Formats: sequence, structure tokens, C-alpha cells
Amino acid sequence: MSPKKLDVSYSSNQEQISPIGTRYTTPMSKIFGEDSYIQAILDVEAQNVKVLSELYPAKVPRSSAKTISSIANTRHVSPAQVRRTEEAKTHHEMGAVIDVLTRKAGKAGRHVHFAMTSADAIETAKAMQTARALDLLLKSASKTRDACLGAASEWKDIPSITRTHGQHAVPAAFGLPFAFFGYCIQKSIERLSFDRDNYVNGKLSGVIGTYDVHASEGMDGEKVERKVLSRLKVGKSEMTMQTPPREDLAYIIADLSVLCGRLATIAAYVKTLKRTEILELSEATEQSSIGSSAMPHKNIHGNPFIEERCISIGRTVRGYALTSLESMFTEDFRDLTASLSDRIALPEAFILSDYSCMLVRNIIERAEPVTRNIERNLNHTRGVTSSQLVMSKLIERGVHRQRAREISLSSANRALRGEISYLESLMGDAKVSELISENELRELCDPRSNLGKSREIIERTVRKYKGKET
Amino acid sequence: MSPKKLDVSYSSNQEQISPIGTRYTTPMSKIFGEDSYIQAILDVEAQNVKVLSELYPAKVPRSSAKTISSIANTRHVSPAQVRRTEEAKTHHEMGAVIDVLTRKAGKAGRHVHFAMTSADAIETAKAMQTARALDLLLKSASKTRDACLGAASEWKDIPSITRTHGQHAVPAAFGLPFAFFGYCIQKSIERLSFDRDNYVNGKLSGVIGTYDVHASEGMDGEKVERKVLSRLKVGKSEMTMQTPPREDLAYIIADLSVLCGRLATIAAYVKTLKRTEILELSEATEQSSIGSSAMPHKNIHGNPFIEERCISIGRTVRGYALTSLESMFTEDFRDLTASLSDRIALPEAFILSDYSCMLVRNIIERAEPVTRNIERNLNHTRGVTSSQLVMSKLIERGVHRQRAREISLSSANRALRGEISYLESLMGDAKVSELISENELRELCDPRSNLGKSREIIERTVRKYKGKET
Amino acid sequence: MSPKKLDVSYSSNQEQISPIGTRYTTPMSKIFGEDSYIQAILDVEAQNVKVLSELYPAKVPRSSAKTISSIANTRHVSPAQVRRTEEAKTHHEMGAVIDVLTRKAGKAGRHVHFAMTSADAIETAKAMQTARALDLLLKSASKTRDACLGAASEWKDIPSITRTHGQHAVPAAFGLPFAFFGYCIQKSIERLSFDRDNYVNGKLSGVIGTYDVHASEGMDGEKVERKVLSRLKVGKSEMTMQTPPREDLAYIIADLSVLCGRLATIAAYVKTLKRTEILELSEATEQSSIGSSAMPHKNIHGNPFIEERCISIGRTVRGYALTSLESMFTEDFRDLTASLSDRIALPEAFILSDYSCMLVRNIIERAEPVTRNIERNLNHTRGVTSSQLVMSKLIERGVHRQRAREISLSSANRALRGEISYLESLMGDAKVSELISENELRELCDPRSNLGKSREIIERTVRKYKGKET
Amino acid sequence: MSPKKLDVSYSSNQEQISPIGTRYTTPMSKIFGEDSYIQAILDVEAQNVKVLSELYPAKVPRSSAKTISSIANTRHVSPAQVRRTEEAKTHHEMGAVIDVLTRKAGKAGRHVHFAMTSADAIETAKAMQTARALDLLLKSASKTRDACLGAASEWKDIPSITRTHGQHAVPAAFGLPFAFFGYCIQKSIERLSFDRDNYVNGKLSGVIGTYDVHASEGMDGEKVERKVLSRLKVGKSEMTMQTPPREDLAYIIADLSVLCGRLATIAAYVKTLKRTEILELSEATEQSSIGSSAMPHKNIHGNPFIEERCISIGRTVRGYALTSLESMFTEDFRDLTASLSDRIALPEAFILSDYSCMLVRNIIERAEPVTRNIERNLNHTRGVTSSQLVMSKLIERGVHRQRAREISLSSANRALRGEISYLESLMGDAKVSELISENELRELCDPRSNLGKSREIIERTVRKYKGKET
Repeated sequence: MSPKKLDVSYSSNQEQISPIGTRYTTPMSKIFGEDSYIQAILDVEAQNVKVLSELYPAKVPRSSAKTISSIANTRHVSPAQVRRTEEAKTHHEMGAVIDVLTRKAGKAGRHVHFAMTSADAIETAKAMQTARALDLLLKSASKTRDACLGAASEWKDIPSITRTHGQHAVPAAFGLPFAFFGYCIQKSIERLSFDRDNYVNGKLSGVIGTYDVHASEGMDGEKVERKVLSRLKVGKSEMTMQTPPREDLAYIIADLSVLCGRLATIAAYVKTLKRTEILELSEATEQSSIGSSAMPHKNIHGNPFIEERCISIGRTVRGYALTSLESMFTEDFRDLTASLSDRIALPEAFILSDYSCMLVRNIIERAEPVTRNIERNLNHTRGVTSSQLVMSKLIERGVHRQRAREISLSSANRALRGEISYLESLMGDAKVSELISENELRELCDPRSNLGKSREIIERTVRKYKGKET
Repeated sequence: MSPKKLDVSYSSNQEQISPIGTRYTTPMSKIFGEDSYIQAILDVEAQNVKVLSELYPAKVPRSSAKTISSIANTRHVSPAQVRRTEEAKTHHEMGAVIDVLTRKAGKAGRHVHFAMTSADAIETAKAMQTARALDLLLKSASKTRDACLGAASEWKDIPSITRTHGQHAVPAAFGLPFAFFGYCIQKSIERLSFDRDNYVNGKLSGVIGTYDVHASEGMDGEKVERKVLSRLKVGKSEMTMQTPPREDLAYIIADLSVLCGRLATIAAYVKTLKRTEILELSEATEQSSIGSSAMPHKNIHGNPFIEERCISIGRTVRGYALTSLESMFTEDFRDLTASLSDRIALPEAFILSDYSCMLVRNIIERAEPVTRNIERNLNHTRGVTSSQLVMSKLIERGVHRQRAREISLSSANRALRGEISYLESLMGDAKVSELISENELRELCDPRSNLGKSREIIERTVRKYKGKET
Repeated sequence: MSPKKLDVSYSSNQEQISPIGTRYTTPMSKIFGEDSYIQAILDVEAQNVKVLSELYPAKVPRSSAKTISSIANTRHVSPAQVRRTEEAKTHHEMGAVIDVLTRKAGKAGRHVHFAMTSADAIETAKAMQTARALDLLLKSASKTRDACLGAASEWKDIPSITRTHGQHAVPAAFGLPFAFFGYCIQKSIERLSFDRDNYVNGKLSGVIGTYDVHASEGMDGEKVERKVLSRLKVGKSEMTMQTPPREDLAYIIADLSVLCGRLATIAAYVKTLKRTEILELSEATEQSSIGSSAMPHKNIHGNPFIEERCISIGRTVRGYALTSLESMFTEDFRDLTASLSDRIALPEAFILSDYSCMLVRNIIERAEPVTRNIERNLNHTRGVTSSQLVMSKLIERGVHRQRAREISLSSANRALRGEISYLESLMGDAKVSELISENELRELCDPRSNLGKSREIIERTVRKYKGKET
Repeated sequence: MSPKKLDVSYSSNQEQISPIGTRYTTPMSKIFGEDSYIQAILDVEAQNVKVLSELYPAKVPRSSAKTISSIANTRHVSPAQVRRTEEAKTHHEMGAVIDVLTRKAGKAGRHVHFAMTSADAIETAKAMQTARALDLLLKSASKTRDACLGAASEWKDIPSITRTHGQHAVPAAFGLPFAFFGYCIQKSIERLSFDRDNYVNGKLSGVIGTYDVHASEGMDGEKVERKVLSRLKVGKSEMTMQTPPREDLAYIIADLSVLCGRLATIAAYVKTLKRTEILELSEATEQSSIGSSAMPHKNIHGNPFIEERCISIGRTVRGYALTSLESMFTEDFRDLTASLSDRIALPEAFILSDYSCMLVRNIIERAEPVTRNIERNLNHTRGVTSSQLVMSKLIERGVHRQRAREISLSSANRALRGEISYLESLMGDAKVSELISENELRELCDPRSNLGKSREIIERTVRKYKGKET
């Protein structure tokens, strides 16, 4: 009996499954399309032979470099052809690229992939894609940061109640959290810029990182590598085995998951403010759009499905981050246990990150504060949210902390139960009246007077980061 | 200033990104293609109106049911049309399906989606896909189980050394672990069958699970639901809110990740046996295939890239499981925070599971034991792997455990250092000779005599599970 | 230079770090304390020698069994002693247990651990702990289910508004979601019962699952195993390598994470209902307790810190599930890459699961519906939440779906903008008045008349599951 | 019926569960012990009042600062007392600290916690612990890096075969991967130093980050904050809500998981080299230690249980990273959904990271190269691992790539099948002999001549990073 054949055929059963790149897509998708990937590999192949021919023309004649460069593009080496060759013949994608390229290059073909190993092309191509993706994402995230900071600015003079644990806390400017969100995105931008500078590395160091073919041929492999990578605009890993440290991708994808995590919290915050009973933010919905296929009334304020999509992205990219953290683990000097997962996690994490940036931008740009409700909610708890200020003032006037707390709290209780304001309730307390004047009390109980440094913080954050280039 | 428009347009920037369904694909992909999804939704819509017209012809005339049924297919309601309608008009996928269907149905259109909410169609369609996917996967996993058990059977008489912690342990039949692998896959099959019976549930209970429209219209909504779901061959969730319990999908995807985890360990085991220094299994490689684009010699035994792909799948599906476990969390009676993630995790986890089943089958069917090396490795440690048997025999003859251990060990040390066999070494120990006869010692030290119940276990496992239908 | 010594000493630097078992603790903690673990191991050792002496008294005399049994407890073999022995001598925990036990057993010591390997004791002990833990958890989860169902029952006649996506959906009984939560916990109970029946398996099959020592000694190892495990009240894995399939623990811990995920969503639901602006549930707080160290007014309704704790547990146990899913991967016939992680994930996932059950129970038992607010919120949207019913009625009366939707929606818009009720708004629409009588409209717009099957569903769920024994 | 009481009592059911801090422990444990945590909180409280009294003596007299400072330590405010107070009275840990501290401070008590909220103390205390933990870990990781680089140096002249995919690749210095490992740890060190500089931030900005109490009292809250944090040696978050951005902890714990991931791959590499058939590294085992409770012969080279423990740590810390990435998600301006999880993930991730650093150090320091086996393995494939060099030389001499590949491969095949060396095989090929001289061939086929830049890379990496201070 002849041995069973390798069976990983993919020509049959072709279906578009993932919504990423189709349903959920941005200009980022272009960077990770099949054409771009094969082109990046071809760019590495072309630069390798070019640099070799410049440095070692006796080994690799310039004519070879010229010929190979002229055909190292997806018009001559189409993804479809590569795929067919892989499936029918090589069972190895890079092998197929080389096969096609070599055949098309005629006599020059013998210098294709000279002194290289597959990982040289693949890892460098991945780095090229990652570089472009980070550049694009940094721009996109900056715009989202600016949208947040813009909203913060616009809403900096609206007094509102804040919440912690879902409970009224104390007053602040309505724009404050948006300044914070902008600041947090800025932190992600800085983190990803650090990643861009440090973890986007290609390599041409051969099968185990020793430049052994170069050495055997009397060439300085590291010089070749440095020149090729610099032209391809990616960094050079100081040391590699067959691949650069797997840390590189793990860091980047984990950081994307943090960015998406922040975008999810922003979306969730907006969603909360759109709750029917709270409704401090609303969005204009279009006539034709449908909030619910069942409930017509859902059209009026709209279901926050875009916000929820951002939360879903947060979870999905976290899954990719996990896979990438685990994919650090490869045996020996390298294996392919990270190959399938990189092909999924890297592009999809980037596209979803950019997509979520776009959605959050859109959410914020479409959100309108409902000042009537903001005001209503602010008054909802009758001013008891000043209880800490009253307590502190009592302490300052000599009351013991525990006692001050009790006084402050019992007035709050009376206000909420008796349906009077906190101010009235406090004025009815002899001890309070003895220590704090009515004017002082009015001031303490007026939310408008107690926004703390809201405005100053918003302004300086906007000044410092809005429009900042990365 | 006019309000900013919702911007989630996906008509531009279309790229095929994910390799799932194209590079990594199986017949499973068909189940999760766009056409199948829209068709499933249309099936729910058609059955709903059909059943309503059967039970309540006064409310929904049979003619409506007939008209709607006749056009509720993707020839009349094509995915492309749905997509265009969603993007241009509804910003709601189900809304777009209804919109197209209603328009095409003419007068009958008013009964489209009657008493339903989007989640009725979507969750039931997902259940239909899940049902088909599980049925297909159970068959596929059974074949992989049988491949394992077949190998176990074929290799049940080859004595070999086993390893724990990468170190020689004791002898066993070479087929033993493959019987275990078959048994483990069987466990996954049983688990997934339990899931198939319990967690594949549709629903038509309306916006919050109370059949409120039915009630208002004087219809028995649960009777309608039961009939529709039974015709669509999915279960009925005993109770729902807007959706069935999110536990359902979480269980299934977690269980898929366990199956993929097992397939990964099988692949890793084979990979270890193919290690150059061990080489107890080899695979026939084809002439044209390429093991490494750099190292021609890698063609001879081949890089175990398929095995590594299965390991990569294990990690990737674990990422989906995580996302699904987290996606249980939705607010209120429902939100859409699980929508994007379900569209990715559910199809891809199933396709990769089936793909990994196929790969492992192929790996095992192509693997050939290299008996020369199995024999060589078995003798590599000179028989010291019988040390536990010798220790036990000494104990049985009255030696204290600690002393027996020392005797057994010191002979093992002498054997390995002195390059003599464990048997010779033991025979040179007066204490041993005093208590154990030479014949007994020969027996104890002969790996062929000490395979324990290897053969019996293999045979009964094969007998019990090979070819078992699910 | 003498070789460096193994350095994993733990006698210095002892600190209590984890809050599990101390800050977060339940009776479950007892099962996983150090004493219980060592005792379980000793139980396995004692039963092994007992059964051997019963079946093969010629090999293992009854006196040995008697002696060993009498000292196989933590009074004679204390955890502290085991630890010291491991650190100073064996660097192997089981080796230390055997060392201490053997020394204390005197002459009988030679039969300690006879024909066993460490994994026989450890895996069986883990199974014993898991069995007890599942039994305890099933009881605890049942009580939490009953608390949910009790609340559902009690609140089954309170009409309230439901929410999807944070937006008002349609009316239902206030108790409905609690019936659903009870039902979901019941699903977890059934799942965990399935686990209890199928995945709690010990093993005494020796170093690679072949009963090789028994075979060599002429004993039927599987008979011994069956008897020992049955006395220890754990299942027997049909087949093992050095350990039972790692699937067992992966399934269980993943299922615990699903249970904790559900408990988290219940807690989050309650937290939402406690939001200041919604406040449909409140809890009685004690005088002395502190809601916030800063804001005295937070005491009044209390920060929902217990609810948030349950959400935090959901995330934490998900982390353990992930680690357990990944820990399926061990090399060869076994390694110890799952040892440290099992010691953490298994006990902590169980304790936190039980703790979260307890907290959710307490949350529900302490929650009081604020009927005034429930009523207020129900009326907040002026009845527009009947829009689907109105639309359906219009369709039934012959209006086309799209038109019916528009009519229903425009009245809703008028109601919300004009501050009149939906009923009034509808009555002002000529088309509506023409097709639907005032009485019918009143009925359609009265939330109390449109709770659908709320009550029936609650009652049957409570009847079926409340107090159900597992 | 009186309302049910809050029941989260932890005084009963106390058990030590987690092995972290006891079984797996390092000096890092001290930093995260209960005493250190409470002390850190007290330090914040003391500094707050001190700085206030310095800047605003009219508001907070120096005497208060002096009194409070003198008792703000765990001798006066013991963890046990705090715990009892929390359980019996406050149900709030910080509330309990304040309660005890206030009572002990007598009259000065009223200035305890002045203008602060719990999160000010807790987040700052966590930052203090994190700062110390990072400082300690950076030192520990540096030592592990140096151990790797030391081994690289020591083994830089040993030619050995490398492996990719478990298959022989090409020769390199035996020390090369250890230089790479050292380099990777250095990358983690640099990453964690970046974290130390950027993400270790405390805060004293009040309940929502607006310094509202300070503002109300006419104090500059940010000035107070800056001074307090600088004295406590932690950074100041540029902007906060109730807490600094949750990104901070997410980044750090994810980065710890990457470090542990690298340590796991190092351990796995060593484990592979210790495999019985490979055995290029061995470790000295002690007489008394036990490799296996069953198999005495396992003592000879030892089960690599320490290596496996590092792999287990990799998985466990990945679980914590996941939990931390997810714990970014908190509602509103803050909630406590990250509280329980931070108490577990933060200390345990740090302790396990340090522990794994220690273990890997120990593994490397105890590993001895078995030069006899390294040599044997290098020759195992008869020199065919030079096939790429031969192919490249043929290309250079004008042979087409595909043809060169075939020639090189067929000689390799002949060598392995015919049991002759690759050199002999090549010399028997007329085409080869025609183009490459015997001397050249000898050189190409001698592994010792083809280590590429192994030595140079090792030396420069060691030079650059060994002993480098962070």
C-alpha cells in the first residue's frame, strides 16, 4: 500500500467566514490583505539580492538583482499562483513564492533567496506590515483621542453628577471623564510608539541566527541584513535565533488589547449615560435606521449597538492577546506553532483596534448632551453629595471625624427621606448652624461651586495633548 | 450643524483577511458561510409564518405563509442585497433581511417576522448552524478517534520505551498512547454529544421571553415556538430572556477548545517521536515538497509543520473559548456585546476543530514506525528501566523499601557508567543474587516481558470504541 | 568546584499572600487545606495496602496493612514533618510522605506505596478533594438557585419595565429575571453533576497506566485499583497514562468559570437595579458599616461592593479556567507542567465558586424591591413600550408592516416630545382610531395587561426547580 | 422580619490554601505580606497629614501630624485589629484602618484621612508595593540574565547541532541559545524598567480626581499630592478619576507574563537537552533526592521537575495577565470589580515571576554540558546539515537553484541511507567534484568550520549586557 498523502488541500471548501475585513473593516485591512503580504515578502527577496549585488558583485551580479527586482511584485508573482504552487507542489508557502519567482527570473533565478531562509522573508514581511499598521493606528488613535478631548472641552462648563459603583458620588464637569479618556488613549499611543521603536524588527540572519551561509561564502551577513532592513524601514533585532524574540509580537498584541479595553470602557460609559433613566447623552438617529426589529419605540434614542460592538471587540482582542502571549512558546531554535495563530491574531487585532478607534470617534462625535437631564440628575439626590465637604468643614472647625461623619450623614438621611434639600436639612441641625454659617453652607451645598479642579484639569489636558503628533 | 452620521460603512476596504475558510478549511466552512447564515434566518422566518398560519389561520392566512415560504431563500433574498440594504438604510442586519423579504412578499409582507424579535431569528439560526456543525464534527472526530485506535491496534505488539518528563520510564507497547488518544477523543465526543443534546437551543419567545405579542394577540406563543423549533431540528430553551442562556455557547466553545487541546497533545507526541535523535515515527514525504526553503536536508524526514499547526490551533481556539466565556456577560435582559465576538468565535472554533481533526487523522495515517530505532531506544538505557520491578521483587522477598531502592539504584548506576547491562550489573550484586534467581532476574529485566497490560488495554479500548457511532 | 545545589527552599520567606481561604473563605476551604490534602494521600496509601493484603495476603501480609492503616493520618504524618523532609532530603513531596510513613511503620514500612507511583496517590487524592468539593458546591449552588427562585416568586406580581441595551424594552413581572437566574444556576448544577459522574477519577495504574508492577508480581492491578477507588468514593478512569486524561480537570474548572460567570451577571443585574436613578432594589445597610471612607452619603443605599466582588470573582476564575485549559498540554506520558498550576487553580476556583454562591445568595436575600420606583420607572416612558403590540395589532387589522411601524413610532414620538401618554397620542391618530377601538387601545397600552406569560413562566420554573435535590 | 444581614464573615474557615508565599516563595513575598500592605496604607495616611500640616498648618496643626505619624505603623494598628474591626463593624477595610487609627490618635484623630478617599490610600499603597516589587524583580531578572550569559560564555567554543522543529538544523556554538535567552531577559528588563518609570503611580486626588475637598477648603490638592507621592517614592498619575488609569496594572502584569513566558521557554529548552536520547545537559542530583517515588533509575539524571515548574508558572501568570487585562473594565468613575482580582493577581504574578527567575538561574547554574553526547549528536546526521552551504556554493559556481538543491539533497539521502558521511557522498558526485574542490568540500562539511558568527554574537552580547545595571 502506498503511503497516505499529505492532505491539507484548501482549493475546495472556500468560504468567506470571518467578518473582519468585510463586515468590520477599515483602511487597515489593506495592509493585511493577501496581496500586501506576498508583496512584502517579494520586497524582502528583492532587497536581499540588490544589497548582495551592491556589496558582493562577484558573488551576485547586478544583472541578477535587476532582473529579480523587476519581477518581484504581485503582477508577476500573483497570490493565486503562489497558492496553486503551494497546494500542488511545495506544501510550503515560501517555497512556492521562491518557486514561482525563480522560474520567472530565468537565469537570474539562481540568486533568488540567496543565503536566506524562509523565516528571513516571513518575519521581515510581518515586521513591515506591523510597522505600517502601527503608523496607521497611531494616527487613528490620535484622532479618537482628539475626539474625546474635543468633547471634554465642549462640555467643560456643564456641572453634572458623577457616579462611582453606579451610585451618585460628587459633582464634576460633564466633560471631565472625556478628558480622562483622551488622556488614557494618549497613554496607549505612547506605549504603542515605544513598541514601534523597539519591537518591530525584521531579520536576515539565516536559519539559526548565525549568518552561516554568509560566513561560509565570505560575506558579512550582518552588514547585508542591516542594509536590507533599513531600506524596508523596519528595525533589526540585535540578536535572533531563527526568528526575532517572540516577545515582540506578544508585547504589541497585548498592548492592542489594552487599547481596545480602554475603548470598550469609553463605549460602556457612553452607553450608561444613554440609559433611559439617566439619558444624559443622546445621539441623532436616522429616519430609516432600525433600533429593534420588534420594538418601534427603540428608534427614538436608539439601541447603543455601536457601543456594544466596541465592548465585544475588547473581548475578542483579549482572546488574540492571550493566544499571542501563549505563542511565545516555541521549541528548539524555532517551530511553526505560532504560524497559524499569527496569521489570525496579528491582522485581526490590528484591524479591530483601528475599527474600534473609528467607532468610538463616531460615538463621541454623534453624542449630544441632554442638559435638561444632566441638571435633573444632578438635583436628584437633593445635594447630599456634598456630605464629604460638610464633614470636612466640621472637622476643620474642630469636630471629631466620627462625629462629623454622623452629623453629615444624618442630615443627608433626613433630606432624602423628608424630601427636603440637604441644605435645608443641614440648616435645621443646631450643631451645624453653630459651626458653619449659612453662606458657607450654601456654598458647600451648591454643586456648581464644587467642581474642584475639573475645569483646570480638562483645559490643561486638552492643551497638552489635543492635536499632538506622535 | 447637522449631526454626524453613523459611520460603520463596510462597502469600501473589503479584504479577505482571515485564513479560516480559505487557507484552513474543511467541509465545515460551508455551514458557516454567509449564504448558509442568511438562509437559516430565512428558514426561521418561513417556519414562523407557516406555523402561525396553521395554528391561527384567522390571524395569519395560509396564503401569506405560502408566499413568504416561496421566497424565503437566498435566491430571492441574497446576502449581497441584505448587505446593501443594511448599509444604506437600516444599519441593522435583521432589519435588512426583513426589509428585503417584506418588499418581495408584496401584500403578504405584513406577516413577515410577525410576533418575532430579531433575536428569535438570529439565535435560532445560530442554533441551526451549531446543530449541523456538531453533527459534522462528531463524525469527523470519530474518524480521528478511529485513526488513533487503528494505529494502536497495528502497533500493539511493538515493545518500546515510554517516557515521562522526557526521561525513559518503563517499557510498553508502542501503540499504547494511541489507544489513550483514541479514548480521549471519545471522551470529547461524549462531551460534545451531551452538548448537542442540551445546549443547542433556539427560541421564539419575543423581546424578553414572555411571548408578549402572542399573548396580546390571543395566541399560545410557546406552542408556536415548540413547533417551529422542532421543524428546524433544534432544541427549545426551557426559559429565555431575549436570548437563551449564554451558557450554551460558552460550554460548547470551551469544549471545542478541550478537543483541540487534545489534538494538539497528540500532534506534539508524534512530533517528539519524529525528533532526529528519537525518530521512532517517520512520514513519507513527497519529492516536490519542501521542508525548508534553506536546508535541503530537511526534506528527508520533513519538518513536522502539520503537527505544529495543530498545536497552533489549540492556542487559537483557546483564545476563542476565553472570549466566549467572557461573553456570557451581557447587561439587562440582553445587549449586543456578544454579537461581533460570536460571529468570529463560533464559526472559527468549529472550522478549526474540524480542520485539526482532519490534520491529526492525516498525521497518524501517514506515520510509519521505525522499528529499528524503537528497538535501539528501548535498549539505550541498558535495561535500568526495570528498576522498579527489581525493587518491588526485593521488597516482596523481605527487604526494606529504602534498602531495596538503594540496591536497585546502585546496580542501575553501575550499568550506565560501566556500559554493561542492568541484568549483568544486578547479577554482580550478592544481595540480589541471594534473593532473586537468575531466571527471575532475566524475566524482570527483559522489556518484552514487562509490558504490563499494554496489549489487553489496547485491545479492549479498540473493541469498545473503534467504529462506534455517536 | 562542586556543583551548585538545588535551591527551591521555602522554609524562609513564609508569608500568607493569597486572600483565598482567609479573606474570601467558606467551608469549602477546609477541603483544600494542607491537612486535608496530606490526609487524602495517606488514605490512598492505606487503602492500597489494605486491598493488596486482602487480595494477595501472601504478597502483603495483613499485619502490614494494619500497621500502616493505623498511622496513615496527619497525627502521625503531619504536614509540617512532610514539608521538612521534602525540603531537607527528598525534594519530592510524595517521596517525603512515603519517607515519613515508612519510617514510622517499622517493619511494615516495606509495603508502603507497594506497586504504586506518586501520581497514583496524588491524582487520586485530587479526585477525592474534587468529589467532596463538587458535592459541597452542588448544595451551595442549589441554595443560591432557591434564593433566586424565592425572589422570583415573591416578586411575581409586580409589573415593571424591562431593559435591553440599557433602554426600556417592554413590561414584565419584576421577578422574571430572577426565575431566569435560578434556571441558569440549575443548568450549571446539571452540568456540574454530569462532571461529578464522569470526570472525577482516580487511578492506581502505575507509572504509565499498564499495571506493570502488579503484572510482574502476578497480581491483577486493575482489580486492586477498582476496589481502592470505590472505597475512596471516586471514579476509575477507564484508561490512563501516568495520569487520567487532563480533560477531566479542564472540564470542571471551565464549568466553574461558567457558574461564576452567571453569578457575576446576576450581581451586575442587581447592581444596575440599585443605580441611583433606577433604584428598584435597595438593601438594608447596618449603622456601623461604611459605604465610602470619604462620602458619608454613600451609606444610605450602600455601594454595591459585594456585587462587584462577584464580578471580580468571575474574572479571576476565568483566569484559572484558561490556565487549566492550557494545562492539558503535557509532554510524553506525563510531566509536571500542570503541578504548580493545579495546586492553585483547582482549590481556588472551587473556593471562589462557593464564595460567590454565598455572596449572591446574601445579595438576593437582602434585596428589597422599591415599589415606588419600580412604578415610576414603568411610567417613565409614558407607555411607548407598547409600540410593538400596537404595530402587531395594526398588522393584524390589515396594515402593511412598514406602515404599521411608522404609525406606531410616530405616536411614540409625539408622546415623548409632547409629554402626553402613548395612549393619548394614539387616540389622536385617525388611522389608529379607525382600526382599533378605545378599549382595545387602553388594554394594549396598559403595562399591567401585557406581562405576557411572566407569571406562568415564573410559577412553573419555581415549581420545577425550587428545592430540587441534586 | 428583620432584613438579612450582610454575611461575608471570614473569621471562621481560615485555611492556608495558596502555595504562593509558602511552597513557592522568595524574598518578594515579604513585600506583599499583609503587614507590608497595611503599613503602606499607614504610610500614605501619615504622609498626607504631615504634608498638609506643613503646607496648611492653620487647617491641620503640626501636632496632629506628629501624633498620627507616631502611631501609623503596624505595631499600633495591627493587621489583626484591622481585620476584626472590618468584620465586626465597618465591612470596609480602609474604613477599619481609619477607625483604628482614629481611635488611637485621640484628639488628633480628626485629621486622619483628611481630604482623602479610600482609593487614595489603596492605590498609592499598591503603587508603593509595585515599585518595590519591580525594583526587586529587576535585580533578580538581571541575575538570571547573567546566569544565561555566563553559560553562553562558558560554552561558546563547543560546536553542537541546533534543532528547529525538533529536527537537526545546522551547527552552532552550544552556548548560542543561552546568549539569546540572556538577551531576551534583557529585553524584559528594559520593558519592565519602562513600566517602572511610567506606570507606577499613586494618587491623592480625591473621590473623582478633582481635588474637590482641597478646593473647598482652599488648599492646592495637587501640590499636596505631588509632595506626598514623591516622599513615598512613587509616580503621580497625570490625571485620574477615582483611580489612576487601570492600564497601569494591566501593562505590568502582562509584561510579567511575557517574562515568565520566556523563562518557561528557557526551561523547556533545557528540558529538551536533558532528554534521555539527547542528553546534552545533565545536572548533579543529590543522593537523598528522589526523582520518582516508583522508578529508582529516575534518580540518575533526575526528572526535570524544576524546569516543568517554570513552564507551569508561565501558564499560571498568563491567567493572571488575562484577569488583569479584563479588569481594566470598571463602570462609571470607578467600581470595585478589580479589587478581589488585584489582591490575587498582582502579588502572585510578582512572586511567581521572581520565583521563576530564581529557578531558571538555579537550573542553569547546575547544568553541565555532556560533551561526549554533544559530539555524538553533532555527528548523528553524518554532516548532511551542511546541505545549505553546499547548495549555496553550487549556486555561486553557476548551478541553478533548483538543480543545486537536488544535488545537495540527493547526496544527503545517499549519506543517510548508505551510512557514509555527507562528505564522502558528495565526493562521489561527479557534478559536485567538478565544481567544488575536495578542500573546499571538507571545509563546507566540517561543522566546526561552520558555526557562522556564533562566537562573535555570544561575545558581544555578553560584553554588552552581562552585569549591566538597570
